Amino acid sequence: MRTDPLVDRLVALALEEDLALGDPTTEATVPAGLAGLGRIAAKAPLVLAGTEVALRVFHAVDPAIEVELQADDGASLGPGALIGLARGPVDSLLRAERTALNFLQRLSGVATLTRRFVEAVEGTGATIVDTRKTTPGWRVLEKRAVRAGGARNHRMSLGSGVLIKDNHVDAAGGVARAIAAARSTAPHLLAIEVEVRDLDELDEALGAGVQLVLLDNLTPDVLRVAVQRAHAAGVLTEASGGVRLENVRAIAETGVRLISVGALTHSATAVDIHMKVAPAP
Amino acid sequence: MRTDPLVDRLVALALEEDLALGDPTTEATVPAGLAGLGRIAAKAPLVLAGTEVALRVFHAVDPAIEVELQADDGASLGPGALIGLARGPVDSLLRAERTALNFLQRLSGVATLTRRFVEAVEGTGATIVDTRKTTPGWRVLEKRAVRAGGARNHRMSLGSGVLIKDNHVDAAGGVARAIAAARSTAPHLLAIEVEVRDLDELDEALGAGVQLVLLDNLTPDVLRVAVQRAHAAGVLTEASGGVRLENVRAIAETGVRLISVGALTHSATAVDIHMKVAPAP
Amino acid sequence: MRTDPLVDRLVALALEEDLALGDPTTEATVPAGLAGLGRIAAKAPLVLAGTEVALRVFHAVDPAIEVELQADDGASLGPGALIGLARGPVDSLLRAERTALNFLQRLSGVATLTRRFVEAVEGTGATIVDTRKTTPGWRVLEKRAVRAGGARNHRMSLGSGVLIKDNHVDAAGGVARAIAAARSTAPHLLAIEVEVRDLDELDEALGAGVQLVLLDNLTPDVLRVAVQRAHAAGVLTEASGGVRLENVRAIAETGVRLISVGALTHSATAVDIHMKVAPAP
Amino acid sequence: MRTDPLVDRLVALALEEDLALGDPTTEATVPAGLAGLGRIAAKAPLVLAGTEVALRVFHAVDPAIEVELQADDGASLGPGALIGLARGPVDSLLRAERTALNFLQRLSGVATLTRRFVEAVEGTGATIVDTRKTTPGWRVLEKRAVRAGGARNHRMSLGSGVLIKDNHVDAAGGVARAIAAARSTAPHLLAIEVEVRDLDELDEALGAGVQLVLLDNLTPDVLRVAVQRAHAAGVLTEASGGVRLENVRAIAETGVRLISVGALTHSATAVDIHMKVAPAP
Amino acid sequence: MRTDPLVDRLVALALEEDLALGDPTTEATVPAGLAGLGRIAAKAPLVLAGTEVALRVFHAVDPAIEVELQADDGASLGPGALIGLARGPVDSLLRAERTALNFLQRLSGVATLTRRFVEAVEGTGATIVDTRKTTPGWRVLEKRAVRAGGARNHRMSLGSGVLIKDNHVDAAGGVARAIAAARSTAPHLLAIEVEVRDLDELDEALGAGVQLVLLDNLTPDVLRVAVQRAHAAGVLTEASGGVRLENVRAIAETGVRLISVGALTHSATAVDIHMKVAPAP
Amino acid sequence: MRTDPLVDRLVALALEEDLALGDPTTEATVPAGLAGLGRIAAKAPLVLAGTEVALRVFHAVDPAIEVELQADDGASLGPGALIGLARGPVDSLLRAERTALNFLQRLSGVATLTRRFVEAVEGTGATIVDTRKTTPGWRVLEKRAVRAGGARNHRMSLGSGVLIKDNHVDAAGGVARAIAAARSTAPHLLAIEVEVRDLDELDEALGAGVQLVLLDNLTPDVLRVAVQRAHAAGVLTEASGGVRLENVRAIAETGVRLISVGALTHSATAVDIHMKVAPAP
Repeated sequence: MRTDPLVDRLVALALEEDLALGDPTTEATVPAGLAGLGRIAAKAPLVLAGTEVALRVFHAVDPAIEVELQADDGASLGPGALIGLARGPVDSLLRAERTALNFLQRLSGVATLTRRFVEAVEGTGATIVDTRKTTPGWRVLEKRAVRAGGARNHRMSLGSGVLIKDNHVDAAGGVARAIAAARSTAPHLLAIEVEVRDLDELDEALGAGVQLVLLDNLTPDVLRVAVQRAHAAGVLTEASGGVRLENVRAIAETGVRLISVGALTHSATAVDIHMKVAPAP
Repeated sequence: MRTDPLVDRLVALALEEDLALGDPTTEATVPAGLAGLGRIAAKAPLVLAGTEVALRVFHAVDPAIEVELQADDGASLGPGALIGLARGPVDSLLRAERTALNFLQRLSGVATLTRRFVEAVEGTGATIVDTRKTTPGWRVLEKRAVRAGGARNHRMSLGSGVLIKDNHVDAAGGVARAIAAARSTAPHLLAIEVEVRDLDELDEALGAGVQLVLLDNLTPDVLRVAVQRAHAAGVLTEASGGVRLENVRAIAETGVRLISVGALTHSATAVDIHMKVAPAP
Repeated sequence: MRTDPLVDRLVALALEEDLALGDPTTEATVPAGLAGLGRIAAKAPLVLAGTEVALRVFHAVDPAIEVELQADDGASLGPGALIGLARGPVDSLLRAERTALNFLQRLSGVATLTRRFVEAVEGTGATIVDTRKTTPGWRVLEKRAVRAGGARNHRMSLGSGVLIKDNHVDAAGGVARAIAAARSTAPHLLAIEVEVRDLDELDEALGAGVQLVLLDNLTPDVLRVAVQRAHAAGVLTEASGGVRLENVRAIAETGVRLISVGALTHSATAVDIHMKVAPAP
Repeated sequence: MRTDPLVDRLVALALEEDLALGDPTTEATVPAGLAGLGRIAAKAPLVLAGTEVALRVFHAVDPAIEVELQADDGASLGPGALIGLARGPVDSLLRAERTALNFLQRLSGVATLTRRFVEAVEGTGATIVDTRKTTPGWRVLEKRAVRAGGARNHRMSLGSGVLIKDNHVDAAGGVARAIAAARSTAPHLLAIEVEVRDLDELDEALGAGVQLVLLDNLTPDVLRVAVQRAHAAGVLTEASGGVRLENVRAIAETGVRLISVGALTHSATAVDIHMKVAPAP
Repeated sequence: MRTDPLVDRLVALALEEDLALGDPTTEATVPAGLAGLGRIAAKAPLVLAGTEVALRVFHAVDPAIEVELQADDGASLGPGALIGLARGPVDSLLRAERTALNFLQRLSGVATLTRRFVEAVEGTGATIVDTRKTTPGWRVLEKRAVRAGGARNHRMSLGSGVLIKDNHVDAAGGVARAIAAARSTAPHLLAIEVEVRDLDELDEALGAGVQLVLLDNLTPDVLRVAVQRAHAAGVLTEASGGVRLENVRAIAETGVRLISVGALTHSATAVDIHMKVAPAP
Repeated sequence: MRTDPLVDRLVALALEEDLALGDPTTEATVPAGLAGLGRIAAKAPLVLAGTEVALRVFHAVDPAIEVELQADDGASLGPGALIGLARGPVDSLLRAERTALNFLQRLSGVATLTRRFVEAVEGTGATIVDTRKTTPGWRVLEKRAVRAGGARNHRMSLGSGVLIKDNHVDAAGGVARAIAAARSTAPHLLAIEVEVRDLDELDEALGAGVQLVLLDNLTPDVLRVAVQRAHAAGVLTEASGGVRLENVRAIAETGVRLISVGALTHSATAVDIHMKVAPAP
């Protein structure tokens, strides 16, 4: 498989925590050469994500396992829909099963929740984006699941963009100085965004020549004013703070361009996916 | 800090994914020597977990950060309750903040949900236990969060117990043969549990001399009969399958001793915890 | 090959310590493409173990090497018996030779010594088990070699069983309190064993409701009494302490069920196995 | 502690295999803050080795443990002799105990056996050296234990010297060509040694201008002749093959300068060392 | 020290390659406890860089070494200027010396060459930036050395910006489609730059609404036209291709804003820095 | 591919620093299945080195890439000469391109510079050797590139030879004592070399029975005398210190046997190699 450095390390860690000291149940009961077929299927409606890392798990556990995917990341599946077929030694399938499913279930959970947010703002012109509130060790995987769900990614890491928050402003001695400092030192392919929490801070940021403003925790009415003011200045707008399925459309209808939603990753729960192993036909 | 092998590797991975390519925002705006104080506090009711790994994150980012905990894992906190104070260079605090909070929020989420299940069965004599449906890479941490929530742990890994499921039974040629095989090869400090899905399978398992039965997806009425039959044979009972907050008490009232709940880890969501960084007083 | 997390890391370390800075002898003398055949054979009577890790070494050194095993772990071989044939580039065979043999020789040494202990108690009903006195870094491999020799495994790690020793008893404030504490917190698939060093401690442990007793360093006469008392209470018995080939049968004849023998791993020496490399026919 | 790259990795692996999934016995019974004192002592006569890696284990488990060594590597100790005192939390001492002792016992076993070989040739002028028949992953540690026992080291790795064996000679097309090839490519700080198995091969090697000859598996009578012939040519001599305590002096008395003994590492067994943990006084 | 994930791994690798098999020279000649003082000084004019990683090397080799820096990264030093004082055991200083100096010499070489390019364009308004033509494994370190030299960084990694080259344009079916595709999927904090190789391609890129153009290998005359055209469209300009000290000012005088110079990292050579170790006064 | 422990770790690090957070440009523009052909060619005269590690990079990025080399390490190529053809998915080729080229360019730069030194001393009988002044993390690769350039290697690591410098002499209490100490403890396959800085030190070293002398920073006239004196004593000679292309032949003409040149690795710059990717024909 193609290298995927951080994911390969997470998979290695995941297999080590479950398999390092053996699988006495399977060792006692399943003959080494027995061939099997695992059917991986949805048990609930879901948007699929994580198939690539699931394949990586099967391959790492035993390169003799061959997996034939029946659906792609981003697909919307109903209960019973087949996701993939895994062929290989039964003992290897059983060793990989739980870890592969744990990845698939959580990542599909992220994609499923993301899709709901994306659908909630459909037609408004707003784009849903994620945050850095991801599961530590899973950053790359969860960001891909967000894309599978139809939303887009905010910064991949602290180094993938400049986002000036209140602590940075305080330390730098004001918004204008913080922006100027970032502009003079940060790589030129990184845009500079400033978090503002009221209209005064917005005006200060706009005056300082920022490219994006992150409008944090404003009420829809204030947000609408802020968005108009920013767009008039040719500045891209992003809303954040307490975004839920219940209020995301109201936020989108203010005209804001991007809405960042921590919940996509921090409040997603696993969706139900199982694998049924049978003797190979 | 004490070594914690799998956790140390997860923390290293988490810091690498966020920090490896630098923090241009902070580098541009925060002077290197500036001293700060971070107040970590709950923003919602929660049961605390993950303080140890949060400390490990701060320590890994910069050993110059000193954290003074104000509450212990397992504590039930209200909104605004102080969790800890972190003192150190502002730039280091900002680099550690997101990763430390992401750990705390998810693990406290697990503990908080666990506590609700534990309280739901209070007085019935049933014990809530977790499963292997954990976040890959997080096994050890989530199992500790479950204990902080007041429940107990099932197997830590495939190697930490013998749990015979249908695939093992099929491959071994029946329940009795599977149990006999496990008894003759597995380490003697591991108990043997068999999953049964109806009363016939239960009788077969009891006849084969098992120590625990996992009663999977039985209705409360059938479960009650199964429990009585197993207890009469001196066999410990565990129920599993589709356990939710809504039905857990009914299950507990059947007299079953253990109830394993995948939701503790696969359906927990993050609870809200934040850190406010200010100049050191 | 199937992943084997801790073993893969040990193999990587072993190859690094021998090969990282090159093999100037072979580089100077052996043409890169030269094909060879290595015959791996016993030079002394032995019980074979470690073939899987030897294959892993050859595969790691050069995936172009193909090894055909001629005997399985657990086989009892005489001098000259062929263990396997390795085909591949001569320079790769020479780079892998020493490390592969070092694994095979030590692990077969463990299996060979284990077999002698197993045979020494044949017919008594006692089972030989190992301990945690293994070569650091080799736990999983040596435990498998013990099984190849015909004995069984005690705990794989500190986390794979509860074994209460004097320090735990002292810290907990008595045997009964230590057992109760373990029973209320340890995973329910782990059995609880208590080490006792005389009949008084045995009685206390039996009174506290333990599942297994580890009878440490008792004389055969006292051991016999202890075993009878424990079995009368339905408690499984294990003897340990100073077990040697000379005295193991006397211990077994006391009726004790398990005899743990540190010597299986801490006193095994390498058996003689060599590989003769020749040009490929 | 000073970095020791390969040893640090072995220690990490050793702790992971034993501690990664926790220590439920100690967690249940030993209060977190309880202070203890561990007395590490010999239980049999031994030559001490491995103290440095034992310290490294204690330090890795918990930097709060402080160890005060009472004897140095190479010291000859009698039963009961104190090796060191370890002060720290009781739970940390118990977590480190087995791994630290497993290192100390095996490495002191190597040093103890080495010392016996060294004493067996005392006064003959011969020097005992080790081989690459070491425990995979332990190369550096076992080589140090050999030095603690009073012998010297052969090659640390394939890259730490040129040793031309029969396969190299065959592939290169004769001893002279093999030596010439090595002389023209290998680093000039590495000496070139050739293995010879009879007097004809010796003459060929001497004619080819080698610096050392490894006289493999010659009878004492032939060995004596070979040694004289080599020394007359100003070439250093080493004997190897089937060296045991019983025959090492006879070999040494042939006048050979170096005797390489695989048994130092492949046939050493653990010596008995224990640690008694008590509450801190 | 603060964690620096990729750098910590490079330092570990560097120490392993030099120290893993010991330092027999120092072990034979330098007493373990001997205290020393190392004076690190420039032997030629240079711009200093890499002090932080040099400290990291000393600390990794032996935490007992204390280094007092006498100059900061970015300082312009003459021959003989003191860079730092390292106090600690002589054997540890000697083990760290070569690796620490190798880092310092190469990174200061990068900073020194960078400074020359920066000075060559002084007053023109152009900014020198680096490229991804860095030493594999050293990306983060060399990018910091470039900043120490007074220039700025281009992308830290493939994921830290969108840079559309001819292969991307061909695969996407034209510049406009490539830009549109990137705009609709890439994180919004990453700017989009397009490489153009003549004025036609420039016009196409400007028409497609790009934010930056990379003007590759244009002659100064064409470059001047291109720059004017791009600036008129409000697009930031960057020149690249064959930039040398001899021609960089002519390029800068075209009015281009950024000049990317692969030579900063791929053609820097080590500057001379040495460390003189003496007994501690 | 064959394992190459330190190189595999460097490649992993190099890919992680460039690819870990994805390649949004390629992801947006290049279809996943598109097949391509990359032509790797020299753009300037060069001596080739590093082909093996370049293959390793392509293989690590995507095992589906197949590379057909058209030239071997050590080949002298002119501008336009084809080095290799890489076939595989276009997106994988683009992900591997920069890292593979960065390795090839730097290592060929080392080989090219080395070849110039080798040619400069042609006919004198002197041999050019490298030093430990290599790029940290690249020791093994740069040493191979030196051999590709036609020179030979000095020590691979601190453990691969004994080289006594002034600090060792001072600490040991004189040259004779330092040599004696090394002779009595260092592995017998390592030669002992002493650095001397004038004729007095040389005489002392010769009197102490050393095998090699490193004549550091002597003028050609003094060097000539020193060489004659050393050769008269049957001692091998090496010159070092300030060796440049301009003065290396004068040094060689003193009759010295080895000339160690730090510049081979610390002053090599990248040579120009590029890869042109096109759709697969």
